[in-house]
Amino acid sequence: MINQHYLEMLGHKSVIRELSEYATARGKEIGYENVFDYSLGNPSVPAPESFTAGAIDLLQTEEPVKLHGYSPSLGLPGVKQTIADSCNRRFGMEYTANHIFPTAGCAGAIAHAVRAVTEPGDEVIIFAPFFPEYLPYLQDAGVKVVIIPASFADFQINFEAFEELLSDKTAAVLINSPNNPSGVVYSEETLRRLSDLLRQRSEEYGHHIFLISDEPYREIAFDGQVVPYPAKFYEDTLTCYSFSKSLSVPGERIGYVAVNPAAENAEKIVPICGQISRGIGHNCPSSLIQLAMAKAIDDTADLSVYETNMNLLYDTFQELGFTVQRPGGTFYIMPKALEEDAVAFCRKALDYDLVFVPCDGFHAPGYFRVAYCIDTEKVRRSLSAIRRFVQEAYGR
Amino acid sequence: MINQHYLEMLGHKSVIRELSEYATARGKEIGYENVFDYSLGNPSVPAPESFTAGAIDLLQTEEPVKLHGYSPSLGLPGVKQTIADSCNRRFGMEYTANHIFPTAGCAGAIAHAVRAVTEPGDEVIIFAPFFPEYLPYLQDAGVKVVIIPASFADFQINFEAFEELLSDKTAAVLINSPNNPSGVVYSEETLRRLSDLLRQRSEEYGHHIFLISDEPYREIAFDGQVVPYPAKFYEDTLTCYSFSKSLSVPGERIGYVAVNPAAENAEKIVPICGQISRGIGHNCPSSLIQLAMAKAIDDTADLSVYETNMNLLYDTFQELGFTVQRPGGTFYIMPKALEEDAVAFCRKALDYDLVFVPCDGFHAPGYFRVAYCIDTEKVRRSLSAIRRFVQEAYGR
Repeated sequence: MINQHYLEMLGHKSVIRELSEYATARGKEIGYENVFDYSLGNPSVPAPESFTAGAIDLLQTEEPVKLHGYSPSLGLPGVKQTIADSCNRRFGMEYTANHIFPTAGCAGAIAHAVRAVTEPGDEVIIFAPFFPEYLPYLQDAGVKVVIIPASFADFQINFEAFEELLSDKTAAVLINSPNNPSGVVYSEETLRRLSDLLRQRSEEYGHHIFLISDEPYREIAFDGQVVPYPAKFYEDTLTCYSFSKSLSVPGERIGYVAVNPAAENAEKIVPICGQISRGIGHNCPSSLIQLAMAKAIDDTADLSVYETNMNLLYDTFQELGFTVQRPGGTFYIMPKALEEDAVAFCRKALDYDLVFVPCDGFHAPGYFRVAYCIDTEKVRRSLSAIRRFVQEAYGR
Repeated sequence: MINQHYLEMLGHKSVIRELSEYATARGKEIGYENVFDYSLGNPSVPAPESFTAGAIDLLQTEEPVKLHGYSPSLGLPGVKQTIADSCNRRFGMEYTANHIFPTAGCAGAIAHAVRAVTEPGDEVIIFAPFFPEYLPYLQDAGVKVVIIPASFADFQINFEAFEELLSDKTAAVLINSPNNPSGVVYSEETLRRLSDLLRQRSEEYGHHIFLISDEPYREIAFDGQVVPYPAKFYEDTLTCYSFSKSLSVPGERIGYVAVNPAAENAEKIVPICGQISRGIGHNCPSSLIQLAMAKAIDDTADLSVYETNMNLLYDTFQELGFTVQRPGGTFYIMPKALEEDAVAFCRKALDYDLVFVPCDGFHAPGYFRVAYCIDTEKVRRSLSAIRRFVQEAYGR
């Protein structure tokens, strides 16, 4: 008989998925170029040439038995070293290859990180607004999810609620900066306060609370700023990274867990990830993709389009009187809807072929997400549709 | 704090891994060409040109945003159709794309198949001898593993023990033909008897017992035979396949689950696999690898070397008076050791730089596995070492 729990999950259709399907269907009616599809967080710029040329070079010159052979269960040593070196150079860390565990993107990274530092029944804290897939990632690992309500003023951390909900059952805290859906970057001040609190509570409870830092948008930062690196602030940090956005290769499923060498039991966590892999059938990411990624380690796709798009949208939302935080990174912006019910707001926007996502599922009710990983030309064309929508539906 | 269960798993080192490490270390002393390393099941022939050329062509001609984009969570539709068509052509099945779920090799396939058709606490039956990694695959899914002792006469199924241990708690039965470690192929007669029994018990217990068929060695078949396809015999079959061996690309992590269209709830199982993926962080295999595999779907690497090697070894073991089944496929052979303790036997073989694996972990104590996925030239050289070892250590 088929598994009833997963069967029930099938019933709950993702709002993002539904809206994206609507956009595709509408595109067939009026031409997809006329649908302002802001629903999906899919990179829209090509992978850097170093990745493509690197992969072709590997296929043309490497001995196939070696190139396509089994990766050691903890990842290809040379690739791990390349990742460690890059992080050390960029963030002043002291990783060795033994602190790096290559994974199938951030999903794979989080699946391993959570299982490595929790026992079933432990509590893991997440902060609204958050990527809704965090819930299955965490629940499947058998932990209890504790949600800290958003700090609506700035989408930094709501420390009042956080201090209250931290407890001796807290095994780990999961953060995401730059943030999906708000685009907000945690400031150094936020990270320092977070770290101080975690250190203090770890001591009080007599066990280390781990910080799991989900950073797929780290390289998409605006105004020339560098996103503060959480592991620099807190010892017990597992950094989860994906090259999906930086290299524009989300379908290739490549990322890693990086274990802060200063963490408790730092030397054991990567081998433990290897054990976790045995049970969930993950194994390593593709050898070819690991090696091609290493050849492009410090490159990125041309990410500047996202900043251009953000500025166009932010200025327009501001001008129209929306309550909205200026994103520090990502390809998302999350304004407050012009009525209490963001679902109703987004439904009305569809009449103008504007596909926005209500943020109820992200635990930011009343807000909507705009994923601006689309051509700038289309963003420009959408601005008059936004103006028309706001004027006709809300008299602004 | 780190997870204690996985930490304990770290303590149990794999015998195969240890022997393989010994072989590598010994190779540094005397030259690896002089170590007859029969420890690891790593393909030794290059991937077919269609795979390599296909991957290069994709990289050179496809639009990168599309090529490297997110795969739909249930896999790339065209790739799924290609797999379905190939299985239909070859095995007379009636799969559609909706019955195919691309996975990261057989490990990923089994992880999904088991979770899809069991509830935690259910029993899953496996047959000795079996690949030891089945235990973590199954235990991590929360099921209870029931082991049917081997039928030592022929390494088909021990039906007497099987009939006794099947119960109303049995949710699924996992088979592996051609078999790692014995090389034995389940006959049509075995599959018919298995199917009849499962049908009868399913009716008796009032629930469908699923058959999970792990078939990574399906394409390595000897004497021109075609390996009987279990799903042709039993409706409720989930076929788990990997291209690791047929295409010689084990590091690329590409395989699938194929759901028999005649199975109970056949249309729901692939969507359920998609839900399972969300929790274990699996997602789809690499898009590039999915597409390159599809271009090589009906090709294989030149697998004839394995048959040549098998014949050399089988004849030698026969000649030396070993009890041994002639493999019908795979790149393994599993003779009975010349003393009761196969570990002691394998230890003595090391003095002749022969690296065999004792089969205690495969639940065939007293036997040893010879993985002959190495150059034929080396196999030939090893034969005199085997003869010397057997004569000097056992007087034969």
